[in-house]
Amino acid sequence: MPGNVLGERFVVVSFGESHGRCVGVVIDGCPAGLPLSEEDVQPLLDLRRPGQSAIATPRREEDRVEILSGVFRGHTTGAPIAMVVWNRDVDSRSYERLLNVPRPGHADYFARVRYGGFNDYRGGGRFSGRITAGFVMAGAVALKLLRVTLGIEVMAYVKQVGEVVAPELTVDEIREKRYSNEVRCPDEETAARMVELIKQVRASGDSIGSLVECIAVNVPVGLGEPVFSSLDADIARALFAIPAVKGVEFGRGFRAVGSRGSENNDPLTLVDGKVLPRTNNAGGIVGGLSTGREILVRVAFKPPASISKPQRTLNLSTMREEEVVVTGRHDPVIGPRAVPVVESMVGIVLADHAIRAGLIPPVLDPTRFRG
Amino acid sequence: MPGNVLGERFVVVSFGESHGRCVGVVIDGCPAGLPLSEEDVQPLLDLRRPGQSAIATPRREEDRVEILSGVFRGHTTGAPIAMVVWNRDVDSRSYERLLNVPRPGHADYFARVRYGGFNDYRGGGRFSGRITAGFVMAGAVALKLLRVTLGIEVMAYVKQVGEVVAPELTVDEIREKRYSNEVRCPDEETAARMVELIKQVRASGDSIGSLVECIAVNVPVGLGEPVFSSLDADIARALFAIPAVKGVEFGRGFRAVGSRGSENNDPLTLVDGKVLPRTNNAGGIVGGLSTGREILVRVAFKPPASISKPQRTLNLSTMREEEVVVTGRHDPVIGPRAVPVVESMVGIVLADHAIRAGLIPPVLDPTRFRG
Amino acid sequence: MPGNVLGERFVVVSFGESHGRCVGVVIDGCPAGLPLSEEDVQPLLDLRRPGQSAIATPRREEDRVEILSGVFRGHTTGAPIAMVVWNRDVDSRSYERLLNVPRPGHADYFARVRYGGFNDYRGGGRFSGRITAGFVMAGAVALKLLRVTLGIEVMAYVKQVGEVVAPELTVDEIREKRYSNEVRCPDEETAARMVELIKQVRASGDSIGSLVECIAVNVPVGLGEPVFSSLDADIARALFAIPAVKGVEFGRGFRAVGSRGSENNDPLTLVDGKVLPRTNNAGGIVGGLSTGREILVRVAFKPPASISKPQRTLNLSTMREEEVVVTGRHDPVIGPRAVPVVESMVGIVLADHAIRAGLIPPVLDPTRFRG
Amino acid sequence: MPGNVLGERFVVVSFGESHGRCVGVVIDGCPAGLPLSEEDVQPLLDLRRPGQSAIATPRREEDRVEILSGVFRGHTTGAPIAMVVWNRDVDSRSYERLLNVPRPGHADYFARVRYGGFNDYRGGGRFSGRITAGFVMAGAVALKLLRVTLGIEVMAYVKQVGEVVAPELTVDEIREKRYSNEVRCPDEETAARMVELIKQVRASGDSIGSLVECIAVNVPVGLGEPVFSSLDADIARALFAIPAVKGVEFGRGFRAVGSRGSENNDPLTLVDGKVLPRTNNAGGIVGGLSTGREILVRVAFKPPASISKPQRTLNLSTMREEEVVVTGRHDPVIGPRAVPVVESMVGIVLADHAIRAGLIPPVLDPTRFRG
Repeated sequence: MPGNVLGERFVVVSFGESHGRCVGVVIDGCPAGLPLSEEDVQPLLDLRRPGQSAIATPRREEDRVEILSGVFRGHTTGAPIAMVVWNRDVDSRSYERLLNVPRPGHADYFARVRYGGFNDYRGGGRFSGRITAGFVMAGAVALKLLRVTLGIEVMAYVKQVGEVVAPELTVDEIREKRYSNEVRCPDEETAARMVELIKQVRASGDSIGSLVECIAVNVPVGLGEPVFSSLDADIARALFAIPAVKGVEFGRGFRAVGSRGSENNDPLTLVDGKVLPRTNNAGGIVGGLSTGREILVRVAFKPPASISKPQRTLNLSTMREEEVVVTGRHDPVIGPRAVPVVESMVGIVLADHAIRAGLIPPVLDPTRFRG
Repeated sequence: MPGNVLGERFVVVSFGESHGRCVGVVIDGCPAGLPLSEEDVQPLLDLRRPGQSAIATPRREEDRVEILSGVFRGHTTGAPIAMVVWNRDVDSRSYERLLNVPRPGHADYFARVRYGGFNDYRGGGRFSGRITAGFVMAGAVALKLLRVTLGIEVMAYVKQVGEVVAPELTVDEIREKRYSNEVRCPDEETAARMVELIKQVRASGDSIGSLVECIAVNVPVGLGEPVFSSLDADIARALFAIPAVKGVEFGRGFRAVGSRGSENNDPLTLVDGKVLPRTNNAGGIVGGLSTGREILVRVAFKPPASISKPQRTLNLSTMREEEVVVTGRHDPVIGPRAVPVVESMVGIVLADHAIRAGLIPPVLDPTRFRG
Repeated sequence: MPGNVLGERFVVVSFGESHGRCVGVVIDGCPAGLPLSEEDVQPLLDLRRPGQSAIATPRREEDRVEILSGVFRGHTTGAPIAMVVWNRDVDSRSYERLLNVPRPGHADYFARVRYGGFNDYRGGGRFSGRITAGFVMAGAVALKLLRVTLGIEVMAYVKQVGEVVAPELTVDEIREKRYSNEVRCPDEETAARMVELIKQVRASGDSIGSLVECIAVNVPVGLGEPVFSSLDADIARALFAIPAVKGVEFGRGFRAVGSRGSENNDPLTLVDGKVLPRTNNAGGIVGGLSTGREILVRVAFKPPASISKPQRTLNLSTMREEEVVVTGRHDPVIGPRAVPVVESMVGIVLADHAIRAGLIPPVLDPTRFRG
Repeated sequence: MPGNVLGERFVVVSFGESHGRCVGVVIDGCPAGLPLSEEDVQPLLDLRRPGQSAIATPRREEDRVEILSGVFRGHTTGAPIAMVVWNRDVDSRSYERLLNVPRPGHADYFARVRYGGFNDYRGGGRFSGRITAGFVMAGAVALKLLRVTLGIEVMAYVKQVGEVVAPELTVDEIREKRYSNEVRCPDEETAARMVELIKQVRASGDSIGSLVECIAVNVPVGLGEPVFSSLDADIARALFAIPAVKGVEFGRGFRAVGSRGSENNDPLTLVDGKVLPRTNNAGGIVGGLSTGREILVRVAFKPPASISKPQRTLNLSTMREEEVVVTGRHDPVIGPRAVPVVESMVGIVLADHAIRAGLIPPVLDPTRFRG
């Protein structure tokens, strides 16, 4: 498959551009019988939407999802589900000017080489964070599917912005408070410090890095298809599709480098009659298979490349370096708006694997739904 | 595809078990005309082979590759290339005993659930590090293909073991000295300290984590197929197929979380007449596309789960916890033997993407090879 | 992949329903640099459109294609191309009534079983011939791509309706006259007899079978990826996606059963300095590879299942047989409207294989286009 | 995927050459828990084996299957199953001579162009009928899987050789007598006439075409994934992978061209309390979905290209036409030896689709097997 197709049995096809007519997605392989309407998709999309807070881009997009196919009388039919949001608030003026002055940290120049200059560079085109609206539409379907059939919940939040790190949080805190503030950190005190830092960084014309942590609970034992389609492998692949992701780790992740086996191994024990690892240094995945403990994955986001501080770059027509100031409307930090996107990507991969493992059948029986 | 198939155009199919008859691989999609014989594959396989050093498992396997198909008169034919190494030194006695006593940190129990108890658990079966012999056979072909057609080199080395970290190294140092010692760290002084630490850890019946860094040089601009088959996404997926990998990061990776955009962006400049990022915080990939700078990826390996120290686990027949001592033959650290495996996985992904991008044709012209 | 995704490198994703909001398609993998606008797609779509002739369904659809993504400043960008036609003239009344009375020859009941009754049955839903509007939109792009890069032409026509068979025709006759009449048979005299027969059949409340022959000229030697993605295998698969197709044969096809090798073999010879088979009993494909001669494929269409004659069927609520009269708006014969669909499917497969074979690069150079 | 990979969930990877070391196959995606040993595979392989009868090639190959992986303690493990037969009776002398004298009707020249002359041309290499030994090994596994889980049987036989056509046969006759004679036609009287004809044709230095009919019984309603992975589409694709296949039709197939809808439609009725089509003109597939009636597919084989009669061809070094006499060991007719191959390909596709439809789970419960 070319690069805009993800998954094996719950397959997501991404299309659309930042400043084109729309951003969209097609899901092929969603089981029949899932109750679904725009109302199931819109809330998650709203959480991703720009123009909502002082710490995000002022670009205003209504981002109303339209389901074009695959739903009939309130349920999925087993046919492909196409969904779009139409682009409204497009302002492409600033990009024309940047055509020969690639913005540092952006894919402008590399895309130009790859696509021979034919790519739609306006607003970053396919490389814009706006493309993730399509991920979220598909994610909302995947997350609902997981919830009603297996009781799986996927919950992400901002764990770190710059040097500000959230303390350990319980699953309940994450579930209830992750969307309670604009920075999407469930710990209010930390959130306040994060917001403070972000405003400061923005005021200085700069941007800042962030870290999103995501947990998935109620994942049954044994999801994943080793060796190449291991659960961690597929989650990592899907997360790297989100612009600005530079690292992915599970459980102790990079901290395992400094660990001894005797402290890092998770011994099995009985928890409420179920065989489970007592600790979760593995982040819920061993040998590419889910362990029954919560999946725990952390995603490093670089600081957004677009900053208003003057930067040096190469002018491709003069082939001389010059100063560039990136105007346009940008986020000073990615993590907060990426939270629903991370949940979506993890949800899409889990849905795909649950179907592959035979845990979700091709036709659902709504009378047996959870919750 | 099920989980044992990797890639789109240079496709790798893994088969075999740790204590079965063999470990093998099929490559489908390798271009015709590549000079190839067992001699091209054996050296990399030898670097992965067990039983070679004081810091590795004493299991002795000759690991002689046999090419079963796809090569005729010294060149690849365009047909699938099947390769195997036969298992010889198989000692499955200790595993029988562990059937109801899952080893902490291993996939034993989770695999048993997934495969209904039908999986070959001897020596870890498909979850053994031994499966990576197949990755290396395929990797050797991919790496040769990349070298002769595009001049690409992929070089990994052990950057860290426990708390011992290597200093910054030049590409030349990495190229020349990465296989010069048993711990595969090009800096001799650091290597000595790593070996010391590993021996100490082993003596205490324990194991230790490690970090492998990998660079790929001469990668042309624009490899990768965003948004889901981005170069970093596909490399990450392939690396997570290696047992014990818990994290993957590119360039500054997780350190970008604490960075400002103004310091993290890599401005473009002219280097010897070529447009290139001046710095390489991105690790050679932006927007999922290669930038022309070296790919820089870091892989975190957890400490091996098999340790001789007594550990608690659950006995699945009595459903009571008991003590287990894992005998058998094991590595106290994974990084050193994983170095050729990391090179292989990165090579496989780059070969796949170079073919997808049309940079390597279906039929090679040996008169135009490099070097 | 689930069933709505076709191809490897020029990938077509179908979505939409007969009586839903739209019928659409996404192409992923179309090279960048192809001049493209709605004007390139509309003419082929018009040839497929219903409501155009006395021998076709009176359903009236404007079928104006809208390109939603993947085109910028008149050229493809290398990003996914999403296209839709909106459904307008939807009359679903008659279908409600048929819910428990499956129409003989239709997929109604089998789809109901497969999708647990959740499928959109109106107008046949995904099983309607209307879905092929999406095939034609993708086909128009594929056919233009083949034409400008390789000079390949794909041309289909109605060879037979019932017992009326067209005589042998030259490539020029097919090229110039295949769309010159409503029945799409280049031989006017035969066409007249076909129309006569169709009208007669329709008047009797019945329908009739037909055969479409398709040739592709200027196909280079060696397209196809044996053994499973042979050129004939992939063309056959794609053609069976068209509703009502019951047989596919290449060259002499089923007539080869009665042949001797000495008469069926096509000896090689020199034609204008090129090595080519002198005869073309093989239909341009041997061993799954194109031979340089024209691809010749024949497609058998059954008579449309919808007929106005009373038929017996089973009432699924009473579980008794009863008589059903299928009203609605239907074609009495499929071949004529299927001609552009057959051209599209063959074009899609050839484009996919030409890209896979490296004959069409990821970025086109419009200065080197043919014609 | 490149061309040597077939299927989505029950995936078959073909490797090996006619005169190389072996012919082999890897199955990825076979459920765990299927009782399997070489004894399950060998019988079907024996039915395909050369050197067995007066009407087949005298090449003698023992063709003993070796299972290299994926089976443990007599059951499949869920891991990839690799199988090989080693080539023994290789006589490549005659092929050297033909290098510049492409045999009419063979892929020699077209493969040479495609693979730049690097292909292993000995014995036809990858284009040899011998490659189907791999299909049969995989097919034997698929057929056993279908039989024990769903009670599906797949049965093929020779329906026609040249002008000699078998009469209508019952399922029981086909089941019991299809392998009772060397020509694999269950009707003894017809079989005798076929053998007579074949001997006559061989004596004259010629070869002859044939037709194989295949039925699959007990196929549940609703298998298939329209629109592109319809059951007929996938069966057709798989059958065209068999060398020398020139046409595939379902049910009435090409005869539907001359039919009226009123005679071709299959009305639903109740049979033993089950909803089924009363007639089976559709061949068990409507709208790409199985109908519950037997799948009925017919496959046209051209006469083998290798004949001992002198033929004209082009000498590629002199670029002049000359006479060629194809020596070597060849079959005068393909149908009889293709019977187990056709059963295998249909079985592989049905197994893949049954898994995709959730009808066969990833782990089998041997206590619930049929029969």
